[in-house]
Amino acid sequence: MEIYEELKPLFNPKSVVVIGASREKGTVGWSIFNDFVSSKKFKGKVYPVNPNAKEILQRKAFPSIKDVKGDVDLAVIAVPAKIVPHVMHDCVDKGVKTAVIVSSGFSEIGHKALEAEIEHIARESHMRVVGPNCLGVFDGHSGVDTLFLPEEKLQRPRPGNIALITQSGAVGSVILDWISSEGYGISKFISYGNGADLTETDFIEYLMEDDQTDVICMYLEGSKNGRRMYHMLKDAVKEKPVLIIKAGSSKEGTHAVSSHTGSLAGSDEIYQAAFKQAGVLRTHDMETMFDYAQALSHQPLSKGDNILVITNGGGFGVLATDEIISRGMHMAQLSEGTKKTIKRYLPTYAGIHNPLDLIGDADSRRYEKVFRAISSDKNVDAVMAITLFQTVSLDPKIVPILRDFNRYCKKPKVVCAAGGKYSQHMMEQIEDTGIPVYNTPAKAADGLYALTNYSKVKRGIF
Amino acid sequence: MEIYEELKPLFNPKSVVVIGASREKGTVGWSIFNDFVSSKKFKGKVYPVNPNAKEILQRKAFPSIKDVKGDVDLAVIAVPAKIVPHVMHDCVDKGVKTAVIVSSGFSEIGHKALEAEIEHIARESHMRVVGPNCLGVFDGHSGVDTLFLPEEKLQRPRPGNIALITQSGAVGSVILDWISSEGYGISKFISYGNGADLTETDFIEYLMEDDQTDVICMYLEGSKNGRRMYHMLKDAVKEKPVLIIKAGSSKEGTHAVSSHTGSLAGSDEIYQAAFKQAGVLRTHDMETMFDYAQALSHQPLSKGDNILVITNGGGFGVLATDEIISRGMHMAQLSEGTKKTIKRYLPTYAGIHNPLDLIGDADSRRYEKVFRAISSDKNVDAVMAITLFQTVSLDPKIVPILRDFNRYCKKPKVVCAAGGKYSQHMMEQIEDTGIPVYNTPAKAADGLYALTNYSKVKRGIF
Repeated sequence: MEIYEELKPLFNPKSVVVIGASREKGTVGWSIFNDFVSSKKFKGKVYPVNPNAKEILQRKAFPSIKDVKGDVDLAVIAVPAKIVPHVMHDCVDKGVKTAVIVSSGFSEIGHKALEAEIEHIARESHMRVVGPNCLGVFDGHSGVDTLFLPEEKLQRPRPGNIALITQSGAVGSVILDWISSEGYGISKFISYGNGADLTETDFIEYLMEDDQTDVICMYLEGSKNGRRMYHMLKDAVKEKPVLIIKAGSSKEGTHAVSSHTGSLAGSDEIYQAAFKQAGVLRTHDMETMFDYAQALSHQPLSKGDNILVITNGGGFGVLATDEIISRGMHMAQLSEGTKKTIKRYLPTYAGIHNPLDLIGDADSRRYEKVFRAISSDKNVDAVMAITLFQTVSLDPKIVPILRDFNRYCKKPKVVCAAGGKYSQHMMEQIEDTGIPVYNTPAKAADGLYALTNYSKVKRGIF
Repeated sequence: MEIYEELKPLFNPKSVVVIGASREKGTVGWSIFNDFVSSKKFKGKVYPVNPNAKEILQRKAFPSIKDVKGDVDLAVIAVPAKIVPHVMHDCVDKGVKTAVIVSSGFSEIGHKALEAEIEHIARESHMRVVGPNCLGVFDGHSGVDTLFLPEEKLQRPRPGNIALITQSGAVGSVILDWISSEGYGISKFISYGNGADLTETDFIEYLMEDDQTDVICMYLEGSKNGRRMYHMLKDAVKEKPVLIIKAGSSKEGTHAVSSHTGSLAGSDEIYQAAFKQAGVLRTHDMETMFDYAQALSHQPLSKGDNILVITNGGGFGVLATDEIISRGMHMAQLSEGTKKTIKRYLPTYAGIHNPLDLIGDADSRRYEKVFRAISSDKNVDAVMAITLFQTVSLDPKIVPILRDFNRYCKKPKVVCAAGGKYSQHMMEQIEDTGIPVYNTPAKAADGLYALTNYSKVKRGIF
């Protein structure tokens, strides 16, 4: 597709120019240039443009982009709003393929004519533009990073297979910072600000094709072209799951969006209906979004929604049951053969029900035997394994056992565990097996819900 | 009240005997005895009882409790189930006031007669008994700790003003371990297991009177005497807020409770109606429970449910609005006088709405001026201050400013911030000001919801 080729230079530029690069540490122009220079991942060339400097961070500075030799894939523009059009013309003359305009001072403060000029230049020239009034892009794999906040204030995540598109730079930066500290991996982060040229729909289209992205997450306040977005979403979910936080679910919130963005936000009911129709999974906060994304980015889809809960704590089994049912999923009925097998592994007084209580004295061996017994039971579509480490018996061998389970059992699975230092240490190890770990039955049920929901979308039965 | 005097020796014993104390490191009998011996807080005497040992952890061991000199306030019993009645008789002969029976092997595995015997001994003797099949008690202030899991596996929380009663030892221990690592403080933790003598209702009655407890949290699967519990809850909420996680909110969950506890769980609708009628706030998971508890244990009650949102990120303001509305609260309408004052402090292009967007370039001074302007506005019942640290301008002086705000403004308030290392560092500092901090608008709205809900309960208008 055309957009995929057009945006390649944005995410994988061979050469980058930072216009408005600065010698003054801590400024926007310094931070962006420094991100490229100090990146261990970014392999392309990077040049600073600043008419008042000879050198920036030991690199020769150029008075204008026109003075830079060779092709330029990406120009990052961080100059005062009123000279942005002039700088853009220089970029067009130079044949720059993509630009990120970080500068603010456009439609968001009422300067609509200036923004229209930017849009016009982009449209006429076919130079594709991100922004203005945005953070731009961060690529977890190529190392492109136009975010103007230093790592001390805004951590960068590890590379991964989840993409995040955000209309709001503030919301986006909070999410990015938070997921970094949570250890989630990111393929691409895109903050498109006022969206004078490229908008959410273009990025969805790009990410549909992007091999490094398995799940598309988005924070949206309102779309300029809802119909186009809807059709794109409908296509995108055929390829990969799309999760959206849409601000303004209440009337008061919709009104607040209008005040905030200066645009007509449109009725939330229409968005809600469009998301449902398109097969998009809507969430209301970043935690739930990434609970969904973790499951979708690591586990296979589910054939149905009959869930088996395995636990070493009866109470957690009950809580998990409540959460599964409240999300519209069902509790699996183990087949008679499986029940018979499992009965041999459990204390005589234990009942063989779902939730399957392995009893508080369960060790990892008991889990292993039960995992093997249920892995081919056709009545079970997905598994939630609750492993509470505040017990005397549960030992660290549960980690390799879960790793094996994840290999030989093709059903989707999640783990639920919670607690302090010791449990958190074990949870991190379990996460390395490829099974997502959640610290409440509610979140674990969210993970399974995302998998069963998207598998219905893929099968066209949502 | 009688129960308050009866249970004083349980939480504040002058002398404790551990029956079944062991020399073998890692065993239940060793762990419990070690908890008392190594506690820096526990100031009473502690004696090990073990007929096969002369010394345990450098303390002289006694063959029987009868050989211990002086009064015994609390006996912790960790011996095989079948000799528990015998040991209890010894305790009664000795005049022991309270006992915790940690041992399992009673009604939970079908041995109902043995449990009935325990109940009978307790009833006849007036020795009050916690358990059997329980973790017993942990007192954050006195240092009493009958939990048989070592700190490496189960962290202990700092002292605080939140009490937690749990029917399930497993669920309780996970919550306790988790809140320890989250930094929440606990007054008393009570795991009462099968509840042969003392049950949730007794502990609610005790905690109503307990000066160290400001919020009562409970995990419940089913009550043996629902009517008595209902009346006690109704009395308790007049004194302090009660938050309950009741497992079995779905039919399948209720069924799972019956399988798990061997008891008839009773219809969830009845519990739900009773909680509502009594003014109890029901939650479904531990995170929400402690989001509620944090607000209730630190902030004053609200006069109404008109909330003002102050933010340095428009998107977060919109998300907060959605969450406030979805919980049945309202967005405050600032008075004209306040609006006029605030207008002077904000950039000219900023609108004065609620959510009140201080714009991304807000520094702590701008927050301070706005806090002062709104603190006496009668249209505002409570405040959510969103402080995003992924901005260039927001500086650390926001911490003393929030501390002052918490002093001079008597409205309830919460802070919302989220992110990686830097934000988390700032969030910890804000938490020390006495204002609870939440990492999503949803959770911050939960905190405000708990305050407005409980203030309605107190005023009898729920």
